[in-house]
Amino acid sequence: MKVESLHDLYIKELRDLYNAENQIVKALPKMIDAANSSELRNALAQHLDQTREHVTRLEQVFRMHNEDVKGEKCKGMEGIIDEGKDVVSHDENLDVRDAGIIGGAQKVEHYEIASYGSVRNWADQMGHVQDAQLLQQTLNEEKEADRKLTEIAGTLNPLAARQSR
Amino acid sequence: MKVESLHDLYIKELRDLYNAENQIVKALPKMIDAANSSELRNALAQHLDQTREHVTRLEQVFRMHNEDVKGEKCKGMEGIIDEGKDVVSHDENLDVRDAGIIGGAQKVEHYEIASYGSVRNWADQMGHVQDAQLLQQTLNEEKEADRKLTEIAGTLNPLAARQSR
Repeated sequence: MKVESLHDLYIKELRDLYNAENQIVKALPKMIDAANSSELRNALAQHLDQTREHVTRLEQVFRMHNEDVKGEKCKGMEGIIDEGKDVVSHDENLDVRDAGIIGGAQKVEHYEIASYGSVRNWADQMGHVQDAQLLQQTLNEEKEADRKLTEIAGTLNPLAARQSR
Repeated sequence: MKVESLHDLYIKELRDLYNAENQIVKALPKMIDAANSSELRNALAQHLDQTREHVTRLEQVFRMHNEDVKGEKCKGMEGIIDEGKDVVSHDENLDVRDAGIIGGAQKVEHYEIASYGSVRNWADQMGHVQDAQLLQQTLNEEKEADRKLTEIAGTLNPLAARQSR
């Protein structure tokens, strides 16, 4: 697909995000199962509900532009999720595993913060007011999820560190 | 490699970051060549110098723990850089390409912000004061690079949007 305008780049990036969000919908249940702390499990479960909502918002944006609702393989998210699986499969200690799950989940959030930041900015520049509002809403939720994970890390990381001090 | 303690997870994540930083050292010159705006080229060139410094800091941390100075393939960064190459090869319009380069570079920064945030936090928890200082220094520079890119996007994105309004 040739990218000849900011509109083309915008749709391309939305397809990347749509695929990324769907990868997250698949991956989060496994992260929830692997998490030991109930606080962490609850936060991830809440974010899974939000992620489904993010998928729906992207579908709305595609429809407003009469674009097919389809994704384009997001290699960045694929790599980040693969690393996350690696953490879950190797960590022997439950508290350390939780620390690793939080670290992995924050990489997921930050990928999305960067990407939604760009598409929201591009939507603004092209005068797509409604798109920009929907994308900003998701961006705020990704930032809030990241902040919440940092807060949980503040409680859980000291447990994970006990044997390493 | 089994991960039995937070120290193991910490070293594993530092190896991931060491590989990621080295991938960035290779990728940035191509992004600089592809960028049209001199402001963007200068910002990326300055960040390339900083990235080499980040590599050196990670080497210092490995040495302080008598760990081999070596990386472990960072799949997340590999995917993010692959997507960036894709943008450069498909964008026909120079201003739109710059918008895409900024978006890609901000994904790189955000991966690092997440990852350095975790290792800095883990270093704190394990009482590695000197590590934490070095990692915080890099974290600050990654956040500043991201902020600078947002500032440049504020100037360049309106040019990229001209044909799409």
